[in-house]
Amino acid sequence: MAKNKILVTGTSVRTDLLQPLIDAGFEVENPTHLLTESELKEHLKTSAGYLLGGDEFASKEALSTADGLKVVAFLGMGYQSFVDVAAANEKEIPITNTPGTLSNSVAEFTAGLLLNSTRKLHKYATENAKGQTGHEEKQHDLSSLHVGIAGLGGIGTRIAEILRNGFNTKVSYFSRTRKENEEKRLNISYSPLEQLLTQVDVLILMTPNTPETTGMIGQAQINKMKKGAIIINTARPEIIDANALLTGLESGQIEYAALDGFYEATSSDGEKLKALVPQKLMVTGHIASLTHEARDGMAKLAISSIINLINTGSDKYVVNKK
Amino acid sequence: MAKNKILVTGTSVRTDLLQPLIDAGFEVENPTHLLTESELKEHLKTSAGYLLGGDEFASKEALSTADGLKVVAFLGMGYQSFVDVAAANEKEIPITNTPGTLSNSVAEFTAGLLLNSTRKLHKYATENAKGQTGHEEKQHDLSSLHVGIAGLGGIGTRIAEILRNGFNTKVSYFSRTRKENEEKRLNISYSPLEQLLTQVDVLILMTPNTPETTGMIGQAQINKMKKGAIIINTARPEIIDANALLTGLESGQIEYAALDGFYEATSSDGEKLKALVPQKLMVTGHIASLTHEARDGMAKLAISSIINLINTGSDKYVVNKK
Repeated sequence: MAKNKILVTGTSVRTDLLQPLIDAGFEVENPTHLLTESELKEHLKTSAGYLLGGDEFASKEALSTADGLKVVAFLGMGYQSFVDVAAANEKEIPITNTPGTLSNSVAEFTAGLLLNSTRKLHKYATENAKGQTGHEEKQHDLSSLHVGIAGLGGIGTRIAEILRNGFNTKVSYFSRTRKENEEKRLNISYSPLEQLLTQVDVLILMTPNTPETTGMIGQAQINKMKKGAIIINTARPEIIDANALLTGLESGQIEYAALDGFYEATSSDGEKLKALVPQKLMVTGHIASLTHEARDGMAKLAISSIINLINTGSDKYVVNKK
Repeated sequence: MAKNKILVTGTSVRTDLLQPLIDAGFEVENPTHLLTESELKEHLKTSAGYLLGGDEFASKEALSTADGLKVVAFLGMGYQSFVDVAAANEKEIPITNTPGTLSNSVAEFTAGLLLNSTRKLHKYATENAKGQTGHEEKQHDLSSLHVGIAGLGGIGTRIAEILRNGFNTKVSYFSRTRKENEEKRLNISYSPLEQLLTQVDVLILMTPNTPETTGMIGQAQINKMKKGAIIINTARPEIIDANALLTGLESGQIEYAALDGFYEATSSDGEKLKALVPQKLMVTGHIASLTHEARDGMAKLAISSIINLINTGSDKYVVNKK
């Protein structure tokens, strides 16, 4: 029984994408409600594969009787918040994730926030709807601006491609590891972060949210930037200190900022920042990867990992020790 | 006296850009208020060159005593609304305009409206500001969409470059004259308009506003499009029939539209369209070319035409018969 059952959780995997599993001889179960720990445990006890696409947490207890489970395929990147990795390691269950599948979607969204900020589109469109027109001011073409990207992983690299190839924008980057091949391919320059801050008209933050990057952009960093610079944050909000951003926007040191995902809105700084929308700030609800292409790409990759691990015992997207 | 005076009207030419005229030995006058016909006439009577950057109309009367005037350099494209061309022809005064200088600015702005529409950025950001989040739906990557451009002049071509080189978007176009070199260079396809309408997910309108293009997109054309298509109009609003757009948006035949410049807001259709902002429609106030780069480029070109015509009697941007 356990040998051919695949548990798929959550509602984001389209039914037709599950067909390769069925074609490969598996029986797919896709409960769409949020599973309790005991429901999950019951399912996993008889499953060979688990596509983790829901909001449940695969705890030590839920995994404790998953003796036939050959793979936990996490739909996305941050599997650590959804699986007890130590418990999976102990039972020698491989965990996979789906790197790269969101890069284009997030990069395109970031380009959208960028144009909204350089040309004040959201601000002017909001004012236009209220009949407030005729006062709009000259802005700058992307082809005349210097954009800095902090974080040159898959998404940051795709942003650099869009800016260099599409908009002839001058691009510099900071990344923990220097990428000389990309420098040559895209004609972009590396700068240490503190130097990058002083050089660019626009700063795009695309670094992972780790203890090291939390508050990476604080008051000191914002003060180093050119007066009137723009900040785009499609990474996690906490990379910029909320109070430093507020102070920078209020003083005009930062001309405009756009964030996909917001701080605790109930905090004092959060409330004050929200009051700057849309004049100096644009906020969307962490939706940069919300496209059919990104989500379908994730599902296809996770399904392929499941088939690989059950049939061959290996897959290139395994993230934990076996 | 008349031999070296240059009249510059309007407020949009930066003072430092006038320096080449002064360096070339001209005396520049730049009244910043809106000139009356008699004030303009008085100025032109003693001017060798006229950079028309204000909102005045250079009437037959205003030109009647401009006997030393060697050039009317119009800042922009639509000189016909600002100069009595027949009167200028009669006096053999060359008129110049400034083609190409706005292309990049308008194309970048159009890309901004496009991303706002494909990813519903303005809509979701407006809702986010009201605390309405969590309901956002999956959209599509530009790399998976087929975009049609109606009008492949300087701006349309620049939009095609941004989409092909930056976003890997599939692009087809319609234009009065087929551009086979651009088809090869950019890997884009030509389609007659009626066929283009049936093929594309997004239609970008970039045609000039002539009697032929007014109402070019009406109910019949909108009905031919794919259900849920997007329309971006950075050309003049009247290219789309307002009632057809309203009906299309209300029925869902058109999923989203973005316009830079709007119909008479007091018309019944205009009011009903405005009520669809930001859910199904985004409107900005004809600001697509409002960048320092575009406006400075226009001024530089107009100034160069003035110097050429006064010094050599010819310039490549002359638009009227001499």
